Amino acid sequence: MADFAQATVKLVDGMQFVGESGTGHAFVMDAAPGVGGKNSGCRPMELLLIGLGGCTGMDVVSILRKKKLDVKDVTMNVKGKWVEGDNYPKYFEGIEVEYVVRGKGITDDAVRRAIELSESKYCSVAANLRGVSKITTSFRVENE
Amino acid sequence: MADFAQATVKLVDGMQFVGESGTGHAFVMDAAPGVGGKNSGCRPMELLLIGLGGCTGMDVVSILRKKKLDVKDVTMNVKGKWVEGDNYPKYFEGIEVEYVVRGKGITDDAVRRAIELSESKYCSVAANLRGVSKITTSFRVENE
Repeated sequence: MADFAQATVKLVDGMQFVGESGTGHAFVMDAAPGVGGKNSGCRPMELLLIGLGGCTGMDVVSILRKKKLDVKDVTMNVKGKWVEGDNYPKYFEGIEVEYVVRGKGITDDAVRRAIELSESKYCSVAANLRGVSKITTSFRVENE
Repeated sequence: MADFAQATVKLVDGMQFVGESGTGHAFVMDAAPGVGGKNSGCRPMELLLIGLGGCTGMDVVSILRKKKLDVKDVTMNVKGKWVEGDNYPKYFEGIEVEYVVRGKGITDDAVRRAIELSESKYCSVAANLRGVSKITTSFRVENE
């Protein structure tokens, strides 16, 4: 693994920025209307939630597949709770991740264990956020 | 401000996931080839770097514009240094943000102050990451 990951973020216009990752993928961020933006792209803080969902989702899918389980779909619903009060900076004091796993013959135990392994061992985004945000998880299995 | 921000992240195929933000913007994440991915989208951890660059970039641009400064371009080069050693989970033990501000008559003092205000008061992404990552900044002004 390289020592560094990197990204470049460049102002386009107004409050619209384009971020390009070191692996060559770009997308737009923008502020909300009312604070100078046009909602042409997601808010920077939403990226933390999407990154967390993607990171732990990759872990959970990998672990379930290694157990030869027939996973049809995995969805993470991620909610970041803003810290209360009028102080700045704002941040997420808590983040809830709800996993919905669809497949055939998937057991609650397998999903619970996969989520635990992601949280405790593999998920880099969770490790980077939980110094500030309390991360809680729940899950639901939907077998065909 | 709403109490929550949210996102939904859904498996597409392989290790490819699509994240959709609560404000309605979607993009692809994928793992690297070699760990089951196809590099069809950015890595989840890269989102933390892009989010940090976008968040502090919005602050810095807003602050410089409020001072009626003629800002032509702002670029943030963001590097996340992986924690050393073989332990898991991996995370960024440090993040460097280099700001490059182009314009007319932009002073170093104005940029330094804007970055300080973003760091200490406004930047939500920095506030969410610095529990784990030591964030350092540098800047360069390029006047026309």
